[in-house]
Amino acid sequence: MSKATDELFKNVISHAKEYGFVFQSSEIYDGLSAVYDYGQNGSELKNNLKTYWWKAMVQMHENIVGIDAAIFMHPTTWKASGHVDGFSDPMIDNKDSKKRYRADQLLEDKIAKYEADGKTDKAAALQAAMDDALKAENLPRLKELIVEQEIACPVSGTRNWTDVRQFNLMFSTQMGAVADDADVVYLRPETAQGIFVNYLNVQKSGRMKIPFGIAQIGKAFRNEVIARQFIIRMREFEQMEMQFFVRPGTQKEWFNQWKEERLKWHLALSIDPAKYRFHEHTKLAHYADAAYDIEFEFPFGFKEVEGIHSRTDFDLSQHQKFSGKKMQYFDPEVNPETNQPYGNYIPYVIETSIGLDRLFLLTLVSAYEEEDLSTAEKQDSRTVLRLHPCLAPVKAAIFPLTKKDGLPEKAREIMDKLKLDYNIQYEEKDAIGKRYRRQDAIGTPFCITVDHQTLEDDTVTIRYRDTMSQERVAAADLERIIGNLVSWKNLLK
Amino acid sequence: MSKATDELFKNVISHAKEYGFVFQSSEIYDGLSAVYDYGQNGSELKNNLKTYWWKAMVQMHENIVGIDAAIFMHPTTWKASGHVDGFSDPMIDNKDSKKRYRADQLLEDKIAKYEADGKTDKAAALQAAMDDALKAENLPRLKELIVEQEIACPVSGTRNWTDVRQFNLMFSTQMGAVADDADVVYLRPETAQGIFVNYLNVQKSGRMKIPFGIAQIGKAFRNEVIARQFIIRMREFEQMEMQFFVRPGTQKEWFNQWKEERLKWHLALSIDPAKYRFHEHTKLAHYADAAYDIEFEFPFGFKEVEGIHSRTDFDLSQHQKFSGKKMQYFDPEVNPETNQPYGNYIPYVIETSIGLDRLFLLTLVSAYEEEDLSTAEKQDSRTVLRLHPCLAPVKAAIFPLTKKDGLPEKAREIMDKLKLDYNIQYEEKDAIGKRYRRQDAIGTPFCITVDHQTLEDDTVTIRYRDTMSQERVAAADLERIIGNLVSWKNLLK
Repeated sequence: MSKATDELFKNVISHAKEYGFVFQSSEIYDGLSAVYDYGQNGSELKNNLKTYWWKAMVQMHENIVGIDAAIFMHPTTWKASGHVDGFSDPMIDNKDSKKRYRADQLLEDKIAKYEADGKTDKAAALQAAMDDALKAENLPRLKELIVEQEIACPVSGTRNWTDVRQFNLMFSTQMGAVADDADVVYLRPETAQGIFVNYLNVQKSGRMKIPFGIAQIGKAFRNEVIARQFIIRMREFEQMEMQFFVRPGTQKEWFNQWKEERLKWHLALSIDPAKYRFHEHTKLAHYADAAYDIEFEFPFGFKEVEGIHSRTDFDLSQHQKFSGKKMQYFDPEVNPETNQPYGNYIPYVIETSIGLDRLFLLTLVSAYEEEDLSTAEKQDSRTVLRLHPCLAPVKAAIFPLTKKDGLPEKAREIMDKLKLDYNIQYEEKDAIGKRYRRQDAIGTPFCITVDHQTLEDDTVTIRYRDTMSQERVAAADLERIIGNLVSWKNLLK
Repeated sequence: MSKATDELFKNVISHAKEYGFVFQSSEIYDGLSAVYDYGQNGSELKNNLKTYWWKAMVQMHENIVGIDAAIFMHPTTWKASGHVDGFSDPMIDNKDSKKRYRADQLLEDKIAKYEADGKTDKAAALQAAMDDALKAENLPRLKELIVEQEIACPVSGTRNWTDVRQFNLMFSTQMGAVADDADVVYLRPETAQGIFVNYLNVQKSGRMKIPFGIAQIGKAFRNEVIARQFIIRMREFEQMEMQFFVRPGTQKEWFNQWKEERLKWHLALSIDPAKYRFHEHTKLAHYADAAYDIEFEFPFGFKEVEGIHSRTDFDLSQHQKFSGKKMQYFDPEVNPETNQPYGNYIPYVIETSIGLDRLFLLTLVSAYEEEDLSTAEKQDSRTVLRLHPCLAPVKAAIFPLTKKDGLPEKAREIMDKLKLDYNIQYEEKDAIGKRYRRQDAIGTPFCITVDHQTLEDDTVTIRYRDTMSQERVAAADLERIIGNLVSWKNLLK
């Protein structure tokens, strides 16, 4: 990334900490690698993103319902899904530093170096050799390439490497009360399987008719060896996933529909559409017959934010095989070609899957602006988060102009009415201008000032975050003015 | 519990499954012990309980903010908190069955048996001996009692026991990329520590002044050996905790205030007040100087639902000791006794801590009613969930009287307006009476029927869950009628 965008991204990260959006986990103990906590403003923003997704998916679709499955699942789930055998990265250890690396990552760093040095032939040749080895899962060949390329450990500087081995990314723990060996269970590496194992229960108890969807928001865990870029790749992260169950043969049509609908959901947040693009997977996962990512242009380049995957009947078929339970749906609708009901089948699945933490970062990065307010007379600037009002952590801030003459009491009286509906902040310290700046920095769309005139005619000054314009309005109108702008209807219509 | 309440509780559990509230986790793989999933109606009810708590605690209090800390924390956190050394149960294994038991539980079963047999002297003597051994953490003595009482393993039937050992209840896993030994990290056994380690970051970035609170909702994990009573004691569960930081010396006053405020929060849900009681801890935890539980009378007796604890400065002091970071707050307010500012101190903490899953069960149990509707002419009954309208998973159901004559289209038109604000369900199958019963069973407060008259004058029939009374209203009034009853203001005012 360029120096300017690099600088910008650093500023966003430090802003996120300074204003209570994201803290390093357990910071007083010098942090836990690739784990982060959401602060007082971050947790509100994250909750608002969840609410927007849940309302758009569950509330607005009569054929989509939500669930909340546990993080712990029966271990056979992960055999059926393929995660026990296949969810791993090729790793290599340096015997001197005891550091572990992803073998492909070491090779990619070398390729990047060739490219930076203008040796494009060498870069291309190594890329091709690596791709072949990865495709064939040829671990000795990966080791050979690392040796041939004379790659050294960045820590010890030596080339004293172990063999390349597969390293499973699932966290495991032991559960239960059996004396000799407790059961090994995993922390789910994706929320999707919680939906698949509950598909029959939900379909039956909810009398769901195909096509229908099941949505879920929840934590997932991956023991990433290379955790990078702030909250982009974390070991503990949150997903918002929806699995949509369809009649076999109709998956292409539903896939296209969800692809478009999901992009619209993002664009409704009024973020620059040029920042988004679709990326088609050319190398499909073993369970998929089509896959697109919605990518967003972060300061460090385009990155996946949401995946739309046509997962076929792979997962349900695997669970049928491993559990012995029938995963079939009886479809009473008549097939016009045969004049018979479609009957029993295992549904096909279209998945939409968002990384909530990435979406959070997307929201923060695109809202962040260091705005130059200088005039001929004087230099000035502010940092403002231009968050969609529905997403803003605080909807309005209430300021008494001074701390006396009954202004604080009047301000609190107004706040006490508004806070039944919205998250409101009260501030009485420092000059009004300073208070405006603090609210700009956390994205509060409205600041309301109570002054001496308020005591006379019950009017207040309302100041708008984006334009910084101010107007005098009746206090009685505040609920309507704020309500109009922060209503979820603005995003859902 | 009596046969009738036993029967009732069984019915609630099967109702919870049949209507999509709670499913056994990974049921297709015969379940995972002491882990449950929330279904389509359960997840909505649980979300509504969270929303009620978050609004009441964070939105309504200008000096309380929320956070969302990760489940993974730095392992030193749990040394500081005392969980690595002290969070354990005395366990004993039967060598033949390989089953593990809580030593005190085996003795308690024996005591219960003595009591059932009318041998109250023996029961009291054993109770006293056990209490002494537990208090002294005398593990050999616990073993001795088990041997003396000739307690046999319920599985193998033998008395071939190991010694009694302490068994830590924290789940552990390995994180990271170090080759020889990865770091052991724990799944947090309580959310409270996520608040304590972030206390400084929140206080500074949020410019919080004492007294202030930090609230959090999130998962916690305990490897319970004896997991019992449906979702009352689970290995994965959810907490809603608030830590309130106060000036030392004022903790008693704040403790009393939070005790009263939290009980009011429960009572606002219009559940029979006689079902609640305070229980004072006579044996305090090492960190507490006062502790009360709010208990609720479940069918199997009174159980803790929420704890209010005066935790002193124990946790912050421990984190200061283990991290070397100053956990002090500078209090600029002037002490009237010394005429000096109170200055630097480590705050004292009042904690309010709810078990969300227990609260969920409380809500379900108290809402559940098998109502006899029989008249002289005919036997009839219904199962109805009398949930507070704010908590109901579905706010209104819309029924076209028949599937033809444009009634479904008209019904959907009405739904499409309402669903922007509320979770609405559309149902067109079966007779209206049957549809009413299905909605009663999930606690939907309103059913709206669209008939031929609707096409003429835009009126609908609204039927109320609790009274089953019906009235004809203008479709245009529905938003107001529903809105009045499901508004959070009803609970927050």
